[in-house]
Amino acid sequence: MEMSPEEKFKEISPADFFYRNRDIAGFSNPVRALYTAVRELVENSLDACEARGILPDIVLFLTIEGQASSERNVVRIKITDNGGGIPPEHIPNAFGKILFGSKYTLIQSRGTFGLGGKMAYLYGQITTNNPLEITVGYRKKIYFFKIMIDIKKNEPIVLEREEKNNSKKWNGTIVSFTLEGDYFRAFPKILEYIKLSALVAPYANITLIDAYGRLIRFSRSTVQMPNPPKETLPHPHGVDVEMVKRLAEENRKRTLISFLTRSFHRVGKETSSRILGQLNLSPDTVVGELGLDEIVRLTQALKNYDGFLPPDASILSPIGEALLKEGIKKELEPEVLAVESRKPQAYSGHPFIVEVGIAYGGRITPPEDGNAII
Amino acid sequence: MEMSPEEKFKEISPADFFYRNRDIAGFSNPVRALYTAVRELVENSLDACEARGILPDIVLFLTIEGQASSERNVVRIKITDNGGGIPPEHIPNAFGKILFGSKYTLIQSRGTFGLGGKMAYLYGQITTNNPLEITVGYRKKIYFFKIMIDIKKNEPIVLEREEKNNSKKWNGTIVSFTLEGDYFRAFPKILEYIKLSALVAPYANITLIDAYGRLIRFSRSTVQMPNPPKETLPHPHGVDVEMVKRLAEENRKRTLISFLTRSFHRVGKETSSRILGQLNLSPDTVVGELGLDEIVRLTQALKNYDGFLPPDASILSPIGEALLKEGIKKELEPEVLAVESRKPQAYSGHPFIVEVGIAYGGRITPPEDGNAII
Repeated sequence: MEMSPEEKFKEISPADFFYRNRDIAGFSNPVRALYTAVRELVENSLDACEARGILPDIVLFLTIEGQASSERNVVRIKITDNGGGIPPEHIPNAFGKILFGSKYTLIQSRGTFGLGGKMAYLYGQITTNNPLEITVGYRKKIYFFKIMIDIKKNEPIVLEREEKNNSKKWNGTIVSFTLEGDYFRAFPKILEYIKLSALVAPYANITLIDAYGRLIRFSRSTVQMPNPPKETLPHPHGVDVEMVKRLAEENRKRTLISFLTRSFHRVGKETSSRILGQLNLSPDTVVGELGLDEIVRLTQALKNYDGFLPPDASILSPIGEALLKEGIKKELEPEVLAVESRKPQAYSGHPFIVEVGIAYGGRITPPEDGNAII
Repeated sequence: MEMSPEEKFKEISPADFFYRNRDIAGFSNPVRALYTAVRELVENSLDACEARGILPDIVLFLTIEGQASSERNVVRIKITDNGGGIPPEHIPNAFGKILFGSKYTLIQSRGTFGLGGKMAYLYGQITTNNPLEITVGYRKKIYFFKIMIDIKKNEPIVLEREEKNNSKKWNGTIVSFTLEGDYFRAFPKILEYIKLSALVAPYANITLIDAYGRLIRFSRSTVQMPNPPKETLPHPHGVDVEMVKRLAEENRKRTLISFLTRSFHRVGKETSSRILGQLNLSPDTVVGELGLDEIVRLTQALKNYDGFLPPDASILSPIGEALLKEGIKKELEPEVLAVESRKPQAYSGHPFIVEVGIAYGGRITPPEDGNAII
């Protein structure tokens, strides 16, 4: 049989991939797109403050700038925070390059895929083609950028750049851009999300100014904040061959025993010796001399060894019972309230803590049919 | 307040992104990982044959090569097809570089994200660290490659490359690699998936050789195939600013009227004139002279214009009622059978056809509680 003409092979950029598959990140329809965009940005702002132990002051403006169709508005989202800002040399990439960011480390943060707000900016650009405007207060200067994304190349295009003196010593970030969304159907969901955020972050001021100019304010009721999360070493139950290979490359000159105790969380000298013994490897072997086969065996041994302690929860930043109680009281003023923090657990070497609050009465809206469902 | 030490900014490769977020593509646990891997590979093989109008002959081998833990086996997946193969210069990238492939065109194919089998190979590598083995019969030669993926760089590493004469004129692809999976819990799902594939592709031979060496064969019952799908122009209801910008860049020298009628599906001369009239644009304006504002207005007009015909269904490759009937009869031998193809519809400019078969009795397994649920 005659073959048909050649298939066309080509490479696309990460920005192009997410442009084609925007639904992966929640941009599947005009309601969800607007909701997801607001959510990504509020979470970025909260993270920017909390990572530095700053009490968050976040202001979110939503404006309707036009009508794209009967169901789609051109909505401007503007959000300001008082986090630490971003070093100016990183601003273009941090906002205009997919897969570039500060969240690719082993540290707890919000957000799902580490794409941050970039999917929101990308979606805004492909639906309205306006540039993203960014103002950053960082140390002695205030920087202003207008940026678009070259989607085919996955590169930021800087249209404007200005700087001036930061005479008021303001630190923070202001982001403003437009996207197509269904404002009226998304708004109740956005409001609910912000209310829940205020509930779990009672130390934050979050202000929403809606498209009618109404100001809705969720005020902080405490200046207590949870301890910021710490960056951590990988727990041996969560490793894979690729990770152990990377760590081994970075530690070629160490002995195996020092590699195991310094590169992994919760691996002590005694356990290391035991595991190495089982694998017939000497503790004094230099990591750079390991063959791939030995790295595979070492990975399997780390994953399957029963005796490790679970990951230390100090790398997490739980709200804690007191703050959770505070947040629920403040937002819901319930008649009955109980909160509970479980002990830290781990799944595949990743620690997590379940924190629960249960409340009844007060300002909690009763369910529509009058029956509380538990 | 003193700022904490710098955040660490970095860029990661697409391979690294999917390594970190493998659950996006279905690699979330040992059962699902094995099932998803098999599914991606079988769909690739079917696509490779159907795109060229070749009756598929697909053989899938599953072998257990070891025990990684109590729930995880090291499973080898080997799949052979008689599709057209791949030009040798593209083999390393087609198998070892994420976001490189032949599916980034507007043509119907299986699969979800256009990542193809690459997530499966990536997952295989990070869990077992064995190379991927590929044998391709393409024109006068047979090519053999051993490949691994440099995940940090998103580049293939070619460990071995051989070629020999294709004396038997065999065209096709054989892929073989190992991954960690839960063979025993995944197997029933794999079998069910292959059975359903055989049902909707009654022109395919699909043979499964399981880990016990049992041969399960789904034989073709017809040599009739659906017409292969055609590559198409974008329908105006499915465009966005980015797409119109790209098309405009490729057609800078055309007049607007020729641009609209040649670059979009279902846009004729009369409609074009009407839309351009509404926008106060002359049909003879050269595309390269359009400003971004005009491109945005043009995009909105194309998206919102009511008068376009829905996308032509010839760009789809529906099974058709006769073949669907054939497939269900062959696999289920039901007592009662009805099939129905609806008329083509479109969602956001993307055409689709609903094809349904309903059957009762024969070899259809009754539901466990004895009640048929409809």
